[in-house]
Amino acid sequence: MENQLCINLPPWVADEIGPDRAYPSDSDKMGLAVRLAAANVRHGLGGPFGAAVFEEDTGRLVAVGVNRVLEHRCSTAHAEVVALMLAHATVGHHRLDAGPAAGYVLATSAQPCAMCYGAVGWAGISRLIIGARREDVQSITGFDEGPLHPDWKNELERRGTAVVTDVLREAACDALRAYHDGGGAVY
Amino acid sequence: MENQLCINLPPWVADEIGPDRAYPSDSDKMGLAVRLAAANVRHGLGGPFGAAVFEEDTGRLVAVGVNRVLEHRCSTAHAEVVALMLAHATVGHHRLDAGPAAGYVLATSAQPCAMCYGAVGWAGISRLIIGARREDVQSITGFDEGPLHPDWKNELERRGTAVVTDVLREAACDALRAYHDGGGAVY
Repeated sequence: MENQLCINLPPWVADEIGPDRAYPSDSDKMGLAVRLAAANVRHGLGGPFGAAVFEEDTGRLVAVGVNRVLEHRCSTAHAEVVALMLAHATVGHHRLDAGPAAGYVLATSAQPCAMCYGAVGWAGISRLIIGARREDVQSITGFDEGPLHPDWKNELERRGTAVVTDVLREAACDALRAYHDGGGAVY
Repeated sequence: MENQLCINLPPWVADEIGPDRAYPSDSDKMGLAVRLAAANVRHGLGGPFGAAVFEEDTGRLVAVGVNRVLEHRCSTAHAEVVALMLAHATVGHHRLDAGPAAGYVLATSAQPCAMCYGAVGWAGISRLIIGARREDVQSITGFDEGPLHPDWKNELERRGTAVVTDVLREAACDALRAYHDGGGAVY
């Protein structure tokens, strides 16, 4: 019986981030999430999904995530969960809204699945920025997005997380298409 | 920026498991989940929640989890997610139903929150056994359970996970009460 599992990032993530870690606009933030998704496909490491957490007031990058399900052999290692876990590790608190910034933004290249949607609610995220839609993910890749709450957006906003959709949606869909065209596994 | 976070178990977990690792009945399975929940409260390490994964055909224990949110400073480290991650590490596959057993059962001392519910759907769990109800958790401890899908049970069963509720419900509620009476933090 195993009693430890470590979630980490592939080394090439550093190349995608680059030296300048300020991402002022929502397009800047989503641009990084989508680049991470596309790079994960290019490196053949699993699902075409990327995510990143930023400080709301400064735009400074806090943590990134890519889908690590196949690499870690772990079904929960979705890009959003990886980014949130590493954001907690960086901030040092189980609620990001207890951290020093005025708020914390999660940008994700595709609409969170049922699990990641629930995870966003617990992490202390003030704003969620979404690229591709749930129906894009399902129609382009065939991934099931799970039993999401039918009124997911209002439920999240009622709990203090603002939601912005369709940011760089087409670029996010390009990463999904690249995965599908490359014969990426659907799990 | 941190690029790794490790999920593990407190050392006392071994004492709760004991030398005999066969748990034939649903009560046996839930008994372990509830003992883990109660022990987490007793050791003052966070939320009153325990979970365990078993092989369906043999009843053999595969992995356990307790709530590690405060210890790991990580909002996603719920008992179910910890148990599922460690079950993946033990089985060596991101789908437990690709493992050698005929099926894998998750017993959880309390109804999964919105995030853990989503996680169950991805892990390849054939059967979910629940102790305390969502309304028990909310009324006894004050923990929010999040925006769960209104038809959560059917949605899960439709995807191949059978659901059994109210197993040792009162014992599971005792762990919740012990946490509340001890002034446990609600986060």
